[in-house]
Amino acid sequence: MSFSPLIRQLIDALRILPGVGQKTAQRMALQMLERDRSGGLRLAQALTAAMEGVGHCKQCRTLSEEELCPQCADPRRDDSLLCVVEGPLDVFAVEQTGYRGRFFVLKGHLSPLDGLGPEAIGIPELMARIEAGQFAEVILATNPTVEGEATAHYIAQLLAPRTIIVSRIAHGVPLGGELELVDGGTLAHALAGRRPIGL
Amino acid sequence: MSFSPLIRQLIDALRILPGVGQKTAQRMALQMLERDRSGGLRLAQALTAAMEGVGHCKQCRTLSEEELCPQCADPRRDDSLLCVVEGPLDVFAVEQTGYRGRFFVLKGHLSPLDGLGPEAIGIPELMARIEAGQFAEVILATNPTVEGEATAHYIAQLLAPRTIIVSRIAHGVPLGGELELVDGGTLAHALAGRRPIGL
Repeated sequence: MSFSPLIRQLIDALRILPGVGQKTAQRMALQMLERDRSGGLRLAQALTAAMEGVGHCKQCRTLSEEELCPQCADPRRDDSLLCVVEGPLDVFAVEQTGYRGRFFVLKGHLSPLDGLGPEAIGIPELMARIEAGQFAEVILATNPTVEGEATAHYIAQLLAPRTIIVSRIAHGVPLGGELELVDGGTLAHALAGRRPIGL
Repeated sequence: MSFSPLIRQLIDALRILPGVGQKTAQRMALQMLERDRSGGLRLAQALTAAMEGVGHCKQCRTLSEEELCPQCADPRRDDSLLCVVEGPLDVFAVEQTGYRGRFFVLKGHLSPLDGLGPEAIGIPELMARIEAGQFAEVILATNPTVEGEATAHYIAQLLAPRTIIVSRIAHGVPLGGELELVDGGTLAHALAGRRPIGL
């Protein structure tokens, strides 16, 4: 069977969403058509507004429709701390910890095999941002993957000549898990990074 | 942290999709903004076109932007068979089996507790459709749930006075499963509905 053309187009268009395959797209399309057309129209408007209106913050380069994102525009934040992350979702994650310094958002991580060198991910802009600011510490919060580690290491080397503290987020066992389920690499990091308990 | 307003609106709007919570909506929004803006705009257009343009087929009542859906408009289909289902997705499922008769789409199933009686789910329209057509058999393919069974039973009773075959899709063990994992009710149906093997 074929759905009618408009429904088929909607199903195809929904498949650009991450994690949405043919079956899920069908269910989404028909559920909106049968139960929530006004919601569907609101989604269409929100999509158009966001796709056309959202650019990048000129300072931290996260996604934002303003020249400065809410984090960069806030004068009460700590100007001596800069946290470097791989993407806008990481800003959200770090923000939830209570961190109130500044951010800089790379375009992912170094990946020479994919042709992504320092320029492609925005390292020159990061250096310019550090040059222009008065940061006492740069926190490298790239992902704890091979590429993320390499990116952090690369940035640390670039910053080595400066009188600025460069730190990396700690590796160790995540809270709430069980030790026997933690992989060996993580556990090795957790052991090597052990700290005296202050009582 | 707060995302900027347009991004926040997009995340909220995405949550009307079935199975999409806060985290998934965030990932969808940022992925579209970072990697596929043209896809996002296409999705917005497809949504608007479908929400505004799609109605119901006047004959089988499935979703369609034409007066007659592709199934009803096709003159080569078998006019002696009518398959009654609960929703448009079921049309798609039955169609994939190779069935080439006609369809009628109810609005769900009878559910007196929710105030859904015969009128609410379109039984009068079904009767009118059967009256107007020349069907030799009506196949009741409502879901194998308590409500679906009750709905099928109700329709069968209404059709009893007529000289028309009324059938129900078979219940039994699904293909490819293991017997020990099949629930008791299904297995009882499969036993009761056993058939001689023709060699």
